[in-house]
Amino acid sequence: MSASMVFTDCSSSTNAARLLPLRRRRSPLLRTNNGVVFPRRLINPIRPEASQFTLLLPPSQLSAYSTRWKRKLQRQIRGEIAAEVLRMKDAIGIVPGLAVILVGDREESATYVSKKKEACEVVGINSFEVHLPEDATEQEVLNSISGFNEDPSVHGILVQLPLPSHMDEQNILNAVSIEKDVDGFHPLNIGCLAMRGREPLFVPCTPKGCIELLHRYGIPIKGKRAVVIGRSNIVGMPVALLLQREDATVSIVHSRTKNPEELTRQADIVIAAVGQTNMVRGSWIKPGAVVIDVGINPVEDKKKLSGFRLVGDVCYKEAKEIASAITPVPGGVGPMTIAMLLSNTLISAKRIHNF
Amino acid sequence: MSASMVFTDCSSSTNAARLLPLRRRRSPLLRTNNGVVFPRRLINPIRPEASQFTLLLPPSQLSAYSTRWKRKLQRQIRGEIAAEVLRMKDAIGIVPGLAVILVGDREESATYVSKKKEACEVVGINSFEVHLPEDATEQEVLNSISGFNEDPSVHGILVQLPLPSHMDEQNILNAVSIEKDVDGFHPLNIGCLAMRGREPLFVPCTPKGCIELLHRYGIPIKGKRAVVIGRSNIVGMPVALLLQREDATVSIVHSRTKNPEELTRQADIVIAAVGQTNMVRGSWIKPGAVVIDVGINPVEDKKKLSGFRLVGDVCYKEAKEIASAITPVPGGVGPMTIAMLLSNTLISAKRIHNF
Repeated sequence: MSASMVFTDCSSSTNAARLLPLRRRRSPLLRTNNGVVFPRRLINPIRPEASQFTLLLPPSQLSAYSTRWKRKLQRQIRGEIAAEVLRMKDAIGIVPGLAVILVGDREESATYVSKKKEACEVVGINSFEVHLPEDATEQEVLNSISGFNEDPSVHGILVQLPLPSHMDEQNILNAVSIEKDVDGFHPLNIGCLAMRGREPLFVPCTPKGCIELLHRYGIPIKGKRAVVIGRSNIVGMPVALLLQREDATVSIVHSRTKNPEELTRQADIVIAAVGQTNMVRGSWIKPGAVVIDVGINPVEDKKKLSGFRLVGDVCYKEAKEIASAITPVPGGVGPMTIAMLLSNTLISAKRIHNF
Repeated sequence: MSASMVFTDCSSSTNAARLLPLRRRRSPLLRTNNGVVFPRRLINPIRPEASQFTLLLPPSQLSAYSTRWKRKLQRQIRGEIAAEVLRMKDAIGIVPGLAVILVGDREESATYVSKKKEACEVVGINSFEVHLPEDATEQEVLNSISGFNEDPSVHGILVQLPLPSHMDEQNILNAVSIEKDVDGFHPLNIGCLAMRGREPLFVPCTPKGCIELLHRYGIPIKGKRAVVIGRSNIVGMPVALLLQREDATVSIVHSRTKNPEELTRQADIVIAAVGQTNMVRGSWIKPGAVVIDVGINPVEDKKKLSGFRLVGDVCYKEAKEIASAITPVPGGVGPMTIAMLLSNTLISAKRIHNF
């Protein structure tokens, strides 16, 4: 089950297009199990009653379909947030604000931060940024956090990870006021997420995005078998807690699990968040299962200008033939994460101002 | 899967002795798989290297054996705590103290409280008690908690549940200082339990007792399939988090799970904490699995002076024929819970006094 072996088997070709082949096909009509034919544009998976049809489609068509709709979904959620931001501004004159603290010059981190700022702009959320040099002291970072904690125009604070190795990450994250911890990683938040009858202030963005995807596509969770692959603090563990809150029967697969394939094949919903290129093969998927791929693994690709392409934890080419719905990488969960960050910032502003 | 039906099927007789038939039998010798014969008293499951033999025994003998040893285990743990309490007193003159707040006159609660006080006495921990009348105000309870929070001779505070209905339980529990919350139910504790790389101040007593049982009997957890039946805040959820910390592959079965029997039958370790008399039948257990029964359900029994007897969530009579080890009810997990309460009080005193 070594990653390299799996990767070689599943995607020996470096042609990125082959991983998402269906995004290029277009068929104007979709046929359901009972023979009813719809023009594609009339089937709206955003509305549950319509998206039930989605589950009846042949898997290969469905994945193409999901892919196209995912972008619309992102636009739709952003639209909803923008409308609410505007309503709040009109009613009480408050504009939600998100502050991002970036330390050092990692190109990837800078890209993420600029994506977040751009997304804020689109929905009308104010964004603030502090960019500290790689050799900044921990105290300088703590000072920035403390400033944002006290700034009433800031409702969410995000420290872009990873931090330089000379800083104590836990110490820095602990300094973020829990009322502004839009990442939702504070242990108090996680505790409330785990406990019945408690409500966390914020739900971590990527797990929240996974559940939102299922909801928006009208995919039932209650009573379903769900397998989460990976048990990280930022995705696997909280998404398992969320699925359980939604009454799924949850199993968590991790590096010590014997025969992860067998357990995964029992799942109606598979969420892969393990960071291993193409680890989840087609044979791991139960026919008709819904697959959410959280992995974003860079893989060398000489045909790309950047020299690499992004690949998920799931072997898309195999899984799409078996699953009833699957998220692509990139373009699946990623955009949802940013949308949920905006959503959390809005929630924070509304709570602080009792709106 | 209604409880009454299950109960009727599994233990239609009201003869309590039939549920724990093996506690009365005595066979002087135990034979392992490879034919080696030990006198019972020489096999000490407290020491892992010896208790490995336990797993090789015929199931029926093993359960009798486990039952007898459980009491010794309780004694052993209490002995260890008593020794540590003494060592602390000798070294720094501090005696750990546990405060219990009891409200109202529920007989069951009074029994639990007196058991806890008695256990404190046995190991040399000071115990304090406040007993308020049923019609006490919430403020009176909060005042008692606040007094104990500030009292340096108190290292653990326990509010006996349930509280009278006119009180806000969450509000009262939140008032207990997290440094003295030996029950470990604070969301911050639960959050730290869920997160990798974090350590809770206290692990909730019953879940901790379950894991301690597995450890003391040398039952491996790492890489094993574990099924937790029930997802309560006080047992199911935290015990699942603990099993995961020990590298088990954990699934949680609950009221919305379809076909719980099928999933449970995959487990090497079953922890039942659902509060349904005899819900887990023999057919739910994989041959050789280890079963921990946390349920304590009172069942009418006219032959008993009290008019009832206590029965677990597992149909013991059936399960003991299939499991390789099983805890009885009563006398299995219950005594471990109290032992872990003592352990948590000791841990608290040691932490507060940096010992």
